[in-house]
Amino acid sequence: MAKALDINALFHPRSVALIGVSADFTKLSGRPFRFFREYGYAGKIYPVNPKHSEIGGLPCFANLAAIPGEVDLAVITLPASAVPRTIAECGAKGVKAAAVISSGFAEVGGEGIRLQEELVRAATEHGIAVCGPNCSGFVYVPERVTASFNVGLDGGFPHPGPVAFISQSGALSAYILAEARERGLGFRYWISTGNECVLSFTDYLHHVLEDPQVGLILGYMEDARDGEAFQAEAHRALVLDKPLIIMKVGRSEAGAKASVSHTGSLAGADDVYQAVFSQNGILRAENLDELFDLAMLAKASRRPRGKRVQVLSISGAAGILMADVGSESGLEFPELTPATKEALKKIMPPFAALTNPMDVTAQAVARPSLFRSAAEVVLADPNVDTLVYFLGIVPGAHERLASDIADIVRSTHKLVVVTWFPLPAPEVCDILTRAGVPFFSEPSRGMRALGKMSQYMATRERVLSRQPQPPTPKPAPESEVGKILDHVRIQGRTAMSEVEAKGLLKAWGLAVPRGGLARTSAEAQSLARGIGGPVAMKASSPDLLHKTEAGVVRLGVKNAQEVEKAYAEIVEKASAWNPDARLDGVLVEEMIAGDFREIIVGVRQDQRFGPVVTFGLGGIFVEALRDFAVCPAPLTVEQAREIIQKIRGYRILTAFRSRPAADVEALARVMCQVGDLALIWQDRISELEINPLFVLPEGSGVVVGDALAVLR
Amino acid sequence: MAKALDINALFHPRSVALIGVSADFTKLSGRPFRFFREYGYAGKIYPVNPKHSEIGGLPCFANLAAIPGEVDLAVITLPASAVPRTIAECGAKGVKAAAVISSGFAEVGGEGIRLQEELVRAATEHGIAVCGPNCSGFVYVPERVTASFNVGLDGGFPHPGPVAFISQSGALSAYILAEARERGLGFRYWISTGNECVLSFTDYLHHVLEDPQVGLILGYMEDARDGEAFQAEAHRALVLDKPLIIMKVGRSEAGAKASVSHTGSLAGADDVYQAVFSQNGILRAENLDELFDLAMLAKASRRPRGKRVQVLSISGAAGILMADVGSESGLEFPELTPATKEALKKIMPPFAALTNPMDVTAQAVARPSLFRSAAEVVLADPNVDTLVYFLGIVPGAHERLASDIADIVRSTHKLVVVTWFPLPAPEVCDILTRAGVPFFSEPSRGMRALGKMSQYMATRERVLSRQPQPPTPKPAPESEVGKILDHVRIQGRTAMSEVEAKGLLKAWGLAVPRGGLARTSAEAQSLARGIGGPVAMKASSPDLLHKTEAGVVRLGVKNAQEVEKAYAEIVEKASAWNPDARLDGVLVEEMIAGDFREIIVGVRQDQRFGPVVTFGLGGIFVEALRDFAVCPAPLTVEQAREIIQKIRGYRILTAFRSRPAADVEALARVMCQVGDLALIWQDRISELEINPLFVLPEGSGVVVGDALAVLR
Repeated sequence: MAKALDINALFHPRSVALIGVSADFTKLSGRPFRFFREYGYAGKIYPVNPKHSEIGGLPCFANLAAIPGEVDLAVITLPASAVPRTIAECGAKGVKAAAVISSGFAEVGGEGIRLQEELVRAATEHGIAVCGPNCSGFVYVPERVTASFNVGLDGGFPHPGPVAFISQSGALSAYILAEARERGLGFRYWISTGNECVLSFTDYLHHVLEDPQVGLILGYMEDARDGEAFQAEAHRALVLDKPLIIMKVGRSEAGAKASVSHTGSLAGADDVYQAVFSQNGILRAENLDELFDLAMLAKASRRPRGKRVQVLSISGAAGILMADVGSESGLEFPELTPATKEALKKIMPPFAALTNPMDVTAQAVARPSLFRSAAEVVLADPNVDTLVYFLGIVPGAHERLASDIADIVRSTHKLVVVTWFPLPAPEVCDILTRAGVPFFSEPSRGMRALGKMSQYMATRERVLSRQPQPPTPKPAPESEVGKILDHVRIQGRTAMSEVEAKGLLKAWGLAVPRGGLARTSAEAQSLARGIGGPVAMKASSPDLLHKTEAGVVRLGVKNAQEVEKAYAEIVEKASAWNPDARLDGVLVEEMIAGDFREIIVGVRQDQRFGPVVTFGLGGIFVEALRDFAVCPAPLTVEQAREIIQKIRGYRILTAFRSRPAADVEALARVMCQVGDLALIWQDRISELEINPLFVLPEGSGVVVGDALAVLR
Repeated sequence: MAKALDINALFHPRSVALIGVSADFTKLSGRPFRFFREYGYAGKIYPVNPKHSEIGGLPCFANLAAIPGEVDLAVITLPASAVPRTIAECGAKGVKAAAVISSGFAEVGGEGIRLQEELVRAATEHGIAVCGPNCSGFVYVPERVTASFNVGLDGGFPHPGPVAFISQSGALSAYILAEARERGLGFRYWISTGNECVLSFTDYLHHVLEDPQVGLILGYMEDARDGEAFQAEAHRALVLDKPLIIMKVGRSEAGAKASVSHTGSLAGADDVYQAVFSQNGILRAENLDELFDLAMLAKASRRPRGKRVQVLSISGAAGILMADVGSESGLEFPELTPATKEALKKIMPPFAALTNPMDVTAQAVARPSLFRSAAEVVLADPNVDTLVYFLGIVPGAHERLASDIADIVRSTHKLVVVTWFPLPAPEVCDILTRAGVPFFSEPSRGMRALGKMSQYMATRERVLSRQPQPPTPKPAPESEVGKILDHVRIQGRTAMSEVEAKGLLKAWGLAVPRGGLARTSAEAQSLARGIGGPVAMKASSPDLLHKTEAGVVRLGVKNAQEVEKAYAEIVEKASAWNPDARLDGVLVEEMIAGDFREIIVGVRQDQRFGPVVTFGLGGIFVEALRDFAVCPAPLTVEQAREIIQKIRGYRILTAFRSRPAADVEALARVMCQVGDLALIWQDRISELEINPLFVLPEGSGVVVGDALAVLR
């Protein structure tokens, strides 16, 4: 719906009406008008306020209808109660877009919710692209459209530049705009999204990605309201190499909703965001410093080609600090090739160690040309993807050092990054800026940003090279899975018993143990005979989800007598644990043999991003250590493999202490299958968990040990 | 030795000789002279250089002896080869202190090492306090002693202030001095320690702690050369409440030396530093930003009284960011009391949520007094230890906001911290500075620093309230422990067998399983009968340290036949695994019953800090997850308890999923005992590891499952 609207009218209006404008330009309702005048918007400006006949030297109109010409954009600062009517008037006048700055809508609840619904109805009826309400408006820098009361504009108009900034906060992003001007970071769009009742964060993201002049997107996000569309745009940003740098807050909230499965309660909302960001190469800024640091690297015309960095430092100490932080940020500090070392020996002072980081030593104070010579040699080394400088105070030589770097950058295609503490004079920084060299003052911040940027490039390469996987087709409703789901629904239940959940997974192609449901002790003995060897026995009930705690599980039951005894005990324990539990019978299954690992694989429906697969080591690991990883479905086998390797205890799955490696490939396939199942039956399955999944040694596959499922 | 020297002569010289001074003041050897003159040192200045008769208008002397008056301090910039002789001349002249700026000593190896030894001999013989060599010298701000070529002095003399800065880097710390001047951070001492051949980092630390005008110590450290003395000074700093803020680099180096025990190879050098810092309340700065951030809080006259913070923010977004980072930094954001909320309701705009963080909303732009009223109410709340502001651009109201804060601070004893983004004009910052209010621009940096400062306060409180524990007395050499150690030494071995290691631990008061060493199968059967019930059997050999891998362990051996069979197999496997292994026999022990957890407790001698106790969950946990904690000995039971709670998997030791809680008290006592053992027999025991230690349920104690020990 929203995308069909003419979002262009928002950013390229030929005329603008300021409805509810105040003659007091210090007021929120007077500030947009002042900015439109002060910063030289070239279109027509129509103040609308029945109390005035003239504002700021321009004729003021009593209402929209009174305006003689056409109006493209309305900037509305009226009380909330007047807004829906005004949007309808906009429709009548042919206005195509509106920035509703007024607050008092859904954010205040009650009557505000109703007003917002009315606003949406009017906007939809007339096809008006609405920014807001309850926002700080927007700024489109090239055409000086200042539909905002943004305090960040008080100190001056933004520098033009490649940044599109989309924010779910008004105040903080205004301060960011002000700070960006101080730092010389140029903007094209500045958008405060407000309640997003018509246009969403994702809609703006879609729009700015269409703009070839946009080179990077900065964002402040609290919540992506349309997860799937957001992911699609993030993917497009990655493909276009327009880095999407988002400060996403709200990590500390207890985001996980109450849930019966372990994995459901494990992965909080922020874990899911983190997974979505990481899958789509979104650069997550942890704070305001990092937002600017990442922007500094993202706006550069060059990208790191790999993770291998050589540091040239005027201080040994700074070099060590940079190696520490760089290593933690995923960068590598390889040795230089023998040829490079040979060449450096001819240049460097006799006692300089040709290491990485390399200390150019205090000699550089007397001979600043050392840096230039060393950099040239180092950049020719095939082991070096990126050269990072650390410079400090070199009396009288700052301009020379910066000019040398500018020269060097012209003679290489590799990325060169400068850290310089304290930052030199502005005219020296300008030399670096003109040469397109990203520079930082605090050296570890430069390394951290470079680490994230290198990770971005690696993700981009992986995503671009990924073979598109055809979506798993949805089976017909009369398929086995459909029948099982129907069967549970017909009984008016949402929780599935272990037998049902295993049946579902078996129908979906997963391996489950041989066995069956016994309704009498004799049936159990007969089943055990048929299986041969020791068996596992468990109560089967949709009301006993955590069977071990209930004491209704017996393992390694060996013969007819043991089966009989176990059957009786299980029935007794089940009713002792929960007298109201419906007992379908006792599940009798083969014992899984072999040197398996116990794994949890679960999937739950995230309200923003749909099905999310969780993976962790089973038993106490996942609960006591919270060692797990999540990924939104659908997953490719390759992605599943990456997720598996992310957990801290991954080593437990590898050949370790004379144990054979686990069948990680089969595990990865099951993660994909479970994700597909929850995606295809999204409207039916609420959550599903295999716990444990027995992962056998390499080549031997996996078997579902136990499973639970909850339907919607 | 070094402490007997007159370090005061270094910092309070009445006269200074600049030996090797250059007439070119841009040169390293000319710069100290220039600074002494330029910045107004009040004592006598004697240039010494045979090539000149006059430098900078002062008579220049051919050598020290030619100087007519007394000389307290020599600043030496001669080539390394001339330095030892010059130090001897200093001795002859009665010079009490020297700053040896020259390099070419131990840091270059070979001849340099010899020259440094000569230097030390001369200094020791004449009792000269030497700073350096291979350093950038030092600055004592109050008396304008500028015995340094520090480029940080080029831009101006440091502001006087409470900071003592001690650095193992020359260049970087000069830049820090320059940056500190820009930020208005005042210094008293600035010391570059160099090779520390006479005076060490710890010596300077001792000295500056004696100075009542020093309020905090900043440091850059690569290596504490005298761990025990360093810890003692750090403790003194904590007691005096002079925060010790150290940027310690070198995390990424593979610091752990090769070692036979698991715990030995687990804990790298940096883990030990981290433990020492944490035990002694040393504030570790992760980077240069944090060094300044922590200094900003440390120099304030108030400390956080607890971890409970209320945030008042002009931006909801910034508030969430601050809560995220604050929570991660150990701060708490409690709810306000009902009385406070009631009072706030009368002040705040109707729709403002009275939460923590609290968004004062855009209303504050129109009514900046909102902040003042809200702050007064919040500070009266007993749930609030510290109030943190986030402010942004409030047109026309910055001075008013700052003055309000200054007023509020005068009316409370609680700490008030301000974050303000972007930072307001310098004159507004000055209002905060004058009121002693710490302020930050990036809000999450302010929170992180406050979190560390609150942790510092908690550590300080704990350390001050700790009952001094009398040191465990060293038993006589003829004690059981001494005899066991002697027995191994006499045999020319360093590795102890399990039987010996257990004997050692038993003699030290630890519980070990009942049992004994069988040298024949018959002996094994007899031992097993005596124990009663199933037994554990293992090869006993000093050459088989990892017995499970060697296949020489049998558990739950039930009767005479099984014992016989197990004995034969163990003997066979032992010689198959290592044909040269000396086999003392087979250890036959009771099986430990009960619901125990397997734990690793180890201790090894760290070259800097002496015995370090490592603790981790046994089995795959410690190896695959690297989940462990370390602490230098001696430990109090209270410290051991804290260490135990530090591991990620601590929950496994608590009552968890129907298991009883483990006997953490007994575990803590064993950690103390093991630390004491390694401390008292520091000259004999190199490393010792109990793996597993069986920790029984609460009140039931612990039993040593297996142990290994290596002597020096």
